[in-house]
Order: sequence, then structure tokens, then C-alpha cells
Amino acid sequence: MLDFTLENISAEDVERLRAVYEPLAQSVRELIDATVRTQVEAADVAVAKAEIDAATARLRRKQLDGSFGVRYLASGERMAWGNAVIGIRNPIAPPVEIQHDSSGTSWCDFHLGAAYEGPPGHVHGGVAALILDHLLGEAASDGINPRLTGTISFRYLRATRLGDLHAEAATTRVDGVKTFAAGHLADDHGVTVEAEGVFIQPRWARGE
Amino acid sequence: MLDFTLENISAEDVERLRAVYEPLAQSVRELIDATVRTQVEAADVAVAKAEIDAATARLRRKQLDGSFGVRYLASGERMAWGNAVIGIRNPIAPPVEIQHDSSGTSWCDFHLGAAYEGPPGHVHGGVAALILDHLLGEAASDGINPRLTGTISFRYLRATRLGDLHAEAATTRVDGVKTFAAGHLADDHGVTVEAEGVFIQPRWARGE
Repeated sequence: MLDFTLENISAEDVERLRAVYEPLAQSVRELIDATVRTQVEAADVAVAKAEIDAATARLRRKQLDGSFGVRYLASGERMAWGNAVIGIRNPIAPPVEIQHDSSGTSWCDFHLGAAYEGPPGHVHGGVAALILDHLLGEAASDGINPRLTGTISFRYLRATRLGDLHAEAATTRVDGVKTFAAGHLADDHGVTVEAEGVFIQPRWARGE
Repeated sequence: MLDFTLENISAEDVERLRAVYEPLAQSVRELIDATVRTQVEAADVAVAKAEIDAATARLRRKQLDGSFGVRYLASGERMAWGNAVIGIRNPIAPPVEIQHDSSGTSWCDFHLGAAYEGPPGHVHGGVAALILDHLLGEAASDGINPRLTGTISFRYLRATRLGDLHAEAATTRVDGVKTFAAGHLADDHGVTVEAEGVFIQPRWARGE
């Protein structure tokens, strides 16, 4: 069973924590981009590496034993701050901020830079899958109970340019514990990847 | 068309560049992990953030205009150092080092920590897709000509624990420009995700 945690902290505390840790993750995202693209010489790299190692040692003085997990507040709000796609504390996450419109569509606009590359100048096909998997899972969810991917498939129409991107997804059908969702990724020239998936509410979350 | 670059540098230069930039990326990977897991207070975070921003500014003094791309050496060796899965210069990449055995199976052993989380304590389903997409693509490739994902599907048997993981894939069939590959991801309790895909040699790489 997955260990979703209930955090007994106030909305004010959440905002205070966000104000401390979100800008840190954003700085690390900039550093990731610079690490892929830098052309400075060995001596400058050595100084930068020493600065980075100093920051890491400072941050590790007090840290979680394991991963961040997923925490629920008493308000019902979910803190998935460590998540690889949406986590505001996770520098690997772009992060994607998912919106929900009144028609039931979930969507997001986001930017992918050099760190998400596969084919030259283009998004890694697996990164497209990563983000669409998350988005379809959110579209298949009711926002409270988790749903996990059962099966998912992707069809690549063409390579996706790095840059400003859009993705959207919606539930297409519900059959018992299975929710079907479909969606796509698009760059500024149109749809590049189509996705279809079946998402399942875990047995332990069904109240059985 | 994708811009694969031919680099006119020697094997010695490649090793020199690797010795400069690979340890930098490894330091940033440690920093990413620390950023997700740190519990130090705001004052320490502020100092760490200043160190990180200084390192970023130093690395950006001279940098590529865009992404790293994929470069081929005169020897035929491929430098995909910016790649989101295997890139030794890309801190987002674990990085995965793909091996090929004599039976035609491609495989990799790697570690995924807190930054790759989806469900609490477990690998994001989309991260599993990211790595399997890349591995199946390598298995479907002849190691020289690129093959891009046409379609790929994933079946999740159960959640994958964060930690030491194994993945493997092999070509199952070739039909003209289409190569079919299949594989799986496993944690220390066995197979967690199965994948099947069709990979296509781009028209411009077919010599047509």
C-alpha cells in the first residue's frame, strides 16, 4: 500500500514553506539548463562545482530520510511537491501546472528547454510520455482519490520542438474501477503526440 | 529534419570534455536530490540559493545558444550528452547506461531516487515510460541510424519502488522501415511495467 500522509499544518504554514522551497527549486532548474549548455573552461567549471557541492552539503544538514511523498492537508488539498511532473520542490519537474476547465478538460501550458531533449532540438519522446501520463491520470481522477495508470499508449505523429508547449486530456469513459482518458501534446505547429490510457483506483482506496 | 551534427574532435578531446563536464552534472544530480529532501530553515536555504545562482551565472558566461543536440564523431561514436535519459551532461538523466548482450538484448541497471517520484515512495509511471521508451528505441536501433518512436504502449502490473532498478528490451520483428521492440522494467520484487513499441527510421535517414 502506498503511504499517503496527512499533514497537520495550516494554510499559512503551507504558504511559508512554499515561499522558502519553491524559489530554491527554480534556481536549481536554471542551474540544470546551464549545466547542459555551458561552454566555460575547466577552471570555471571547477569553481561552479565547488559552489554547487557547498549548497548541497548545506541543504543536506537536515533532510528527509526518503522521498518527499504525497501529503494531504486537513483541507483536502494535496501537496505533491516532490512529484517528477508537477512538484514545485522538484527541479526535474518543469513543473507542469494543470488547469481544469468547466467542460471537464484538463490542460497545461509549459516550457521545455535543453534538459528535456531527445532528438536534436526536440523533446525526448519519453518526456512527452511522462507529461501525458501525468495529465491523463489527473483527467481520470476526481481530484481526491488517486488513480494509477493501468495501461497507456502513445502515437507519435512527428517530433515535438523544444519550447512552449500545450497538452490537454479528458475522461472518455468510466467502467467500474476503470477510467478511460485520452489527450495530446502540441507544439506551435500543432498536435505531435496522441495518448490513450486506462486508469485504475487502487484496491486499498476503494473502501473495500 | 533533425540536425545531427558531425564533430571534428579527437578521442582525446572527447575524454577531456567528459572529465570536465560529467562530474559537474553529477554534482547537480546530488543537488537535485537535496533540493527535494531538504528540511533546513529559510536562512540556510537562502545561502544555498545564492551559491547556486552564483554557479549558474558562472556557467552561463559562455554557453550554447540552444540545446546540446546529438553529435557524431568521425569515429562514428555518438555523443548524446544532453539526452534526458542517457545524457552524461544532463542532470535530469539518471543517467542510464545501456548495455548490449550477445543475444541482442539491451539492458540497464540504474538507481532512481526522490526526484523520480510519483506515488509515495514509488517511481512516477511516466518516468518508467520515459526510460523504457529510450531503451526500446535503442534496442530497435542498429546503433548508427536513429530510429524514432512511432507508437508505444505500457502495461503497469504494479507500482515500482524507488531504488535500484533493472530494465531490458529487444527487437521482436522488423517489417520494412518499422522495427518492433518489447521490454520491461523491474524492481527488486520483479517486473513492474511491460512495454511494446514500433520504431521508425526517419525518411531523411533512409537515404531516399
